[in-house]
Amino acid sequence: MSREPAPAYRRAGVDLALADQVVERLKPLAAQTRTPGVMGGLGLFGGCFAFPDPGGEDLLVASIDGVGTKMKVARLMGRWEAAGYDIVAHCVDDVLTLGARPLFFLDYVGTSRLELDIVEALVRGMVAACREAQCALLGGETAEMPAVYHPGEVDLVGCLIGSVRRGDILPGGRVRSGDQLIGLASNGLHTNGYSLARKVLLEEGPGVDALLGEHGPSIGEALTARHRMYWKAAERYLARPELHAMAHITGGGIPGNLARVVPEGHTAHVRTASWEVPAIFREIEKRGSVGSAEMYEIFNMGVGWVMVVDPSAAPAWAGELAAGGWGGWRLGEVVAGGNGVRLEG
Amino acid sequence: MSREPAPAYRRAGVDLALADQVVERLKPLAAQTRTPGVMGGLGLFGGCFAFPDPGGEDLLVASIDGVGTKMKVARLMGRWEAAGYDIVAHCVDDVLTLGARPLFFLDYVGTSRLELDIVEALVRGMVAACREAQCALLGGETAEMPAVYHPGEVDLVGCLIGSVRRGDILPGGRVRSGDQLIGLASNGLHTNGYSLARKVLLEEGPGVDALLGEHGPSIGEALTARHRMYWKAAERYLARPELHAMAHITGGGIPGNLARVVPEGHTAHVRTASWEVPAIFREIEKRGSVGSAEMYEIFNMGVGWVMVVDPSAAPAWAGELAAGGWGGWRLGEVVAGGNGVRLEG
Repeated sequence: MSREPAPAYRRAGVDLALADQVVERLKPLAAQTRTPGVMGGLGLFGGCFAFPDPGGEDLLVASIDGVGTKMKVARLMGRWEAAGYDIVAHCVDDVLTLGARPLFFLDYVGTSRLELDIVEALVRGMVAACREAQCALLGGETAEMPAVYHPGEVDLVGCLIGSVRRGDILPGGRVRSGDQLIGLASNGLHTNGYSLARKVLLEEGPGVDALLGEHGPSIGEALTARHRMYWKAAERYLARPELHAMAHITGGGIPGNLARVVPEGHTAHVRTASWEVPAIFREIEKRGSVGSAEMYEIFNMGVGWVMVVDPSAAPAWAGELAAGGWGGWRLGEVVAGGNGVRLEG
Repeated sequence: MSREPAPAYRRAGVDLALADQVVERLKPLAAQTRTPGVMGGLGLFGGCFAFPDPGGEDLLVASIDGVGTKMKVARLMGRWEAAGYDIVAHCVDDVLTLGARPLFFLDYVGTSRLELDIVEALVRGMVAACREAQCALLGGETAEMPAVYHPGEVDLVGCLIGSVRRGDILPGGRVRSGDQLIGLASNGLHTNGYSLARKVLLEEGPGVDALLGEHGPSIGEALTARHRMYWKAAERYLARPELHAMAHITGGGIPGNLARVVPEGHTAHVRTASWEVPAIFREIEKRGSVGSAEMYEIFNMGVGWVMVVDPSAAPAWAGELAAGGWGGWRLGEVVAGGNGVRLEG
């Protein structure tokens, strides 16, 4: 993935076109701070830093992120612990795409009024996620700013540092024609698409208590389901040469995120019929009259993680992942020609 | 400084008593995430992590922080670039107290509506500060959340990772009776005490355009002065055994922050007459009818950094720092007996 010579500098707002403008404006600025440890061109999910010296074999991978307006639903449902889990899981998944193991995490909680029970619940969720990823919660900061935040609102930010051996960085130029795509199940929206989902399902829709289908879960439960952490699924494959790349399906969906690891002159063909799209996404699509293509560009649509693997390993790995409850769907493959990702019915 | 067995977990709200409660509630939670790399009991300004292995000689030091409601004044004055500088400087100073050199920085900008010019100005300020500290701006994230932030408001968060050799960590048990205190000048409030300052000077006071004294600067200019970064002042002394400790004077003032590096059974005596308190603090004290003791517990009062040094080095170092424009005031000394910090007229 050598398209990106500047330090990884990723920004995502609600409006993706505006986010692109932000990146364009900020990339040359960030490039001015380049120091010898900075590793360029390795990926966009996290920044990479060679430590302790540029010739060393160990690299640090860093990612900072927020939970976004999922926090609004967390408040409606009082599910703060899930939100704490979300921010760690999101960051772990980001650095994991580079093949990096989590080392430590730091959090920031900004709020209008510091409510001890809420902060504690958030941290409980972070702790659960950190323990699952064998990651230390190394520090945190809480700020109370009624002049900045709407009453009762909370913003939650996390920064995670991981490490990877230089030779083990993904995708590291390994992806090639014939590589197979294995999809891992998401657990709902994770942390993306909440502006649209809230508008369609809550503000103009039936609200948190309405059931999805006959037997539920409720819309509120579905919208606060925890961001799935793929560490336990992927860890065992990290040292395997058959693992060529991984993509975390966040804002931009499968097309926007899988494209980051597809080499130029290649296309990842994804068969959307190879998994079942969960009810929550169908509900948003129907109620919001959102086009199918747009849905796949905003939401993960049920696939939160994609592994790009050597054809020799694909059948066995997919089977193992399916047996482990991770989905393990055979989504399609990488073929020579074209560029990016192509969704097929 | 072995009072603190849990991972460094620092939280600061407006209400310090509440912040203490937060720390008490969260410390045992964070302790559950302890992994072999986590170094406890080293200091409270940043988290410490041994990399790549617990026996290794290089430690990572991490700190996450926000600019707080200084952002409100930044908006009033349109001084976003200064705010960008502030967040980096604050984080650099925090990890520097452990003797750590900055490696890289990541930022998060949360806002009601993404304004490209503002984000760019913020990043320009970060870049200036990063270059000054030879630190890479490795990544960042911007979030647009009108449902969370008041219209036009911005929260700015930074996370900085630095490194230090195990044997060079400060204070590392070096502080002893007879050690001399050298104060370095602040550049105004830095990022602390803004809730009180805004109330007294802006909401109930003369506003941003009023001059401090006859010739200014204006109150708005004084309140948006950049957080001073002590990297260039301290860098040359980091390897010197005569450097015993350093304290970053943030919320809690000199008493709250210098106390962190004073060993039990010792007291740091600080002569407040040894430097001149800048006009902005006198103005807040006068207009707000704030007691003198309280002023020193909320604001840095003109001293943003304190070095605790061996008596043999104090005269020369103070002279060098004074000549370099850093103040270099001889504040007092550490004496056996008692505990913490004692301010003397």
